[in-house]
Amino acid sequence: MQARDLAAPFPTVELTTPVLEAARLLAGQDLPGLIVVDWRGRPLTILPGTQVLRMAVPQYCQEDPTLARVVDEAAADVFLRELGDRTVAQCLPAERRELPVVGPGATALEIAALMARARSPLVAVVDDDGGLRGAITLDTLLHRLVSS
Amino acid sequence: MQARDLAAPFPTVELTTPVLEAARLLAGQDLPGLIVVDWRGRPLTILPGTQVLRMAVPQYCQEDPTLARVVDEAAADVFLRELGDRTVAQCLPAERRELPVVGPGATALEIAALMARARSPLVAVVDDDGGLRGAITLDTLLHRLVSS
Repeated sequence: MQARDLAAPFPTVELTTPVLEAARLLAGQDLPGLIVVDWRGRPLTILPGTQVLRMAVPQYCQEDPTLARVVDEAAADVFLRELGDRTVAQCLPAERRELPVVGPGATALEIAALMARARSPLVAVVDDDGGLRGAITLDTLLHRLVSS
Repeated sequence: MQARDLAAPFPTVELTTPVLEAARLLAGQDLPGLIVVDWRGRPLTILPGTQVLRMAVPQYCQEDPTLARVVDEAAADVFLRELGDRTVAQCLPAERRELPVVGPGATALEIAALMARARSPLVAVVDDDGGLRGAITLDTLLHRLVSS
């Protein structure tokens, strides 16, 4: 069982993608985040879902979440307005999260070791030219390991 | 839209639950982790999926993932042996992750603010007596916010 057998298509965004589009990609898909790729399709980093929320929720609400309770408007309105026309580049944390990358021949144990070390529930699988072939989630990997 | 409308049943483990059982609960369910509850059913913390991997992958492989490539046995065998009869309590990180908790009346914006601040893709919803009513994931919340 190698990375090529475990890799599945995974949604990606670019640095110029509007954050709102990223939020829509994330919504309801149960993904740990989105893979950010460069213009050549090579993985750069991961955009964690919680980071999108950090952009979408007004700062005063994050500092004191009880204030959010008294905001006199629909949550969705606040949320969409805060995201505005900001891009993924503006949304990434100052210290970018490590996105572990493996080649198609990596073994399941190697992938698990990388996820464990990087504390990342996602590993990108790249071809020899560095292009994204797909990704492996923690769930996929655990499923294969505990059910085999 | 309040926490009571967004909360959904969520799998839980106790401190005495075998980690292997936790791994099986996590596998293939696309959850960001499992909620750890005490004997009265009150949420204590979250067990991140990557933490289960940290227990399951031999230490020498984590330090040098390329070593994992040359292990001459099936990954699943290594994985299951390492987990052995260890419990969730033995698997939790020394510094427990914050699991944000809200009451049934919390608003969507309040929940989003909590997730953003704690960088947690999961919020537990508890009743007045502290018992777990359910949980709200980042995906559920984003779905409601961007599609409304």
